[in-house]
Amino acid sequence: MEAQITRRPYTIGLDLGGTNAVFGIVDAQGNILEHTSIKTQQYSTAEDFVNAGVEALMPIVDKVGGINKIEGMGIGAPNSNFYDGTIAYAPNISWAHECVVPFAKMFSDKLSVPVAITNDANAAALGEMTYGVAKGMKNFIMITLGTGVGAGIVINGQMVYGSDGMAGELGHVIMRRENGRTCGCGRKGCLEAYCSATGVARTAREFLETSPEPSLLRDMNPEEITSLDVSKAAAKGDALSLRVYEFTGKMLGEACADFMTFCSPEAFVFFGGLTKAGDLLMKPLIKGYEENVLGIFRGKAKFLVSSLDGAGAAVLGASAIAKNIEH
Amino acid sequence: MEAQITRRPYTIGLDLGGTNAVFGIVDAQGNILEHTSIKTQQYSTAEDFVNAGVEALMPIVDKVGGINKIEGMGIGAPNSNFYDGTIAYAPNISWAHECVVPFAKMFSDKLSVPVAITNDANAAALGEMTYGVAKGMKNFIMITLGTGVGAGIVINGQMVYGSDGMAGELGHVIMRRENGRTCGCGRKGCLEAYCSATGVARTAREFLETSPEPSLLRDMNPEEITSLDVSKAAAKGDALSLRVYEFTGKMLGEACADFMTFCSPEAFVFFGGLTKAGDLLMKPLIKGYEENVLGIFRGKAKFLVSSLDGAGAAVLGASAIAKNIEH
Repeated sequence: MEAQITRRPYTIGLDLGGTNAVFGIVDAQGNILEHTSIKTQQYSTAEDFVNAGVEALMPIVDKVGGINKIEGMGIGAPNSNFYDGTIAYAPNISWAHECVVPFAKMFSDKLSVPVAITNDANAAALGEMTYGVAKGMKNFIMITLGTGVGAGIVINGQMVYGSDGMAGELGHVIMRRENGRTCGCGRKGCLEAYCSATGVARTAREFLETSPEPSLLRDMNPEEITSLDVSKAAAKGDALSLRVYEFTGKMLGEACADFMTFCSPEAFVFFGGLTKAGDLLMKPLIKGYEENVLGIFRGKAKFLVSSLDGAGAAVLGASAIAKNIEH
Repeated sequence: MEAQITRRPYTIGLDLGGTNAVFGIVDAQGNILEHTSIKTQQYSTAEDFVNAGVEALMPIVDKVGGINKIEGMGIGAPNSNFYDGTIAYAPNISWAHECVVPFAKMFSDKLSVPVAITNDANAAALGEMTYGVAKGMKNFIMITLGTGVGAGIVINGQMVYGSDGMAGELGHVIMRRENGRTCGCGRKGCLEAYCSATGVARTAREFLETSPEPSLLRDMNPEEITSLDVSKAAAKGDALSLRVYEFTGKMLGEACADFMTFCSPEAFVFFGGLTKAGDLLMKPLIKGYEENVLGIFRGKAKFLVSSLDGAGAAVLGASAIAKNIEH
């Protein structure tokens, strides 16, 4: 028998990045009512960080009526585990890079509300499902295209965490089994080594090296080329840059064709810097998918770009974790 | 509020193969109390088949105490869809190869018990979860290695059917993007083209053609070589045949490493003819997995072979679908 639950009106979202830790208070419609931030790396221990976080947070909690108005808190953070609430060996967070921090419990003890944590791609998926283009969908795959490639998978309306809380590492499926690019994970040929923002810049450098074709990018120091430069050049009609996006989109489409065989999602939702390239990326992506997918799946999946505002999306996503805590 | 449910003691399983349709009555412990069968293709219409099936079934239903002792019926069948209960365009079933048959409803109307249907790989997964080596597991992937390669995926204790009921086609992820073998699906480089029983025979023929190495298999007509011949020769120490299993196991291991990034299962469970090769297959499979999997997943997954008896497993699996119908 399920108990009758009265939900409180607001949730707290914390987007823990390598530079800033942004707190927001979110209402049921996905409006960020209040927000504040502290510097992630300014503290020598996790305890100092949590104390500073709570200190920054309490004034905005009071503004919305106090902690009794807060249903729970959700945290999107790198190297975090939903099941045990920890951040473990996070290379980019000074107070968590050589230890396991019981981060959710530390906030929960201070705030006396339930706190849950997961990685940023899962948070993004929960955000889209709760407030964004995946609202009402029971089966979709969120793919985040930033410095790396992340994924959050929703099946039967539930986030997929897997047996150990680490599911959804689709940036590390192998797309090139021969002569693959070295990936940050130490292996070769991962999707992330090609289709992240850094992957796009690598592809541009590779094309510049291996083709004599003229390009606007030749005016730059190759080492300084970013995906944004490639996108800008492509928008000006630069043929080599256009080929970079065709290559990237096609590979993402091929990867999605494989993902489709797994859980047959209703949609793929894309988020992150690379999606700013718009059709430059999405057209070859959809073409690569349709040309490579198993016949029974052809024409079935939607390809969507996140509708959430970039700046607030991570906080919204984090707050959505709190809405999905089971009571 | 959930209603109190009194379950009836037995379920019916139907394993619908291209040749035989085997019915079994199964108790809660997974014992097949009674079974019977009819020929799948002896009927010109689905209606004739269902009538003959019910006629064969009723005597064994009566033996266990009548239809009031039956909780439901589960059917494992090719080209079937869990969501709408149909078999559609099944190439190997004469009365269903050019149409959509509402198969579950036809049995349900005759028997007045709930009937559910899914493909054989999903049925196998439900069988393992209910009666076999995956008992109690919430996250695992079943991989069937027969004429083709099938998969049944369980996440959060639930079968993954996807948005359209067609999830789990892992035999059709692409393992070779350049010069891949043509697959039965019409595309190139699918896992199934390499790691099915027919794939193993193809690999043997390829090795015989491209290497001058002596082999016991050279005494045979290459076109007649089966995976069983390769397994027998390998068991006798035939070096070329051993290489075939190493190649097959390694590729399966690489595929599992990719599958792991998706849903981080507790175990991979293998079923089907190829598993009879035992360590010949499983050792290179586990090695291929551990050498290729993302660091955070290393050493985590179990690699298991189905514990269910081959002959009864399909009926048990089918009956398990009935146990998983939501009431």
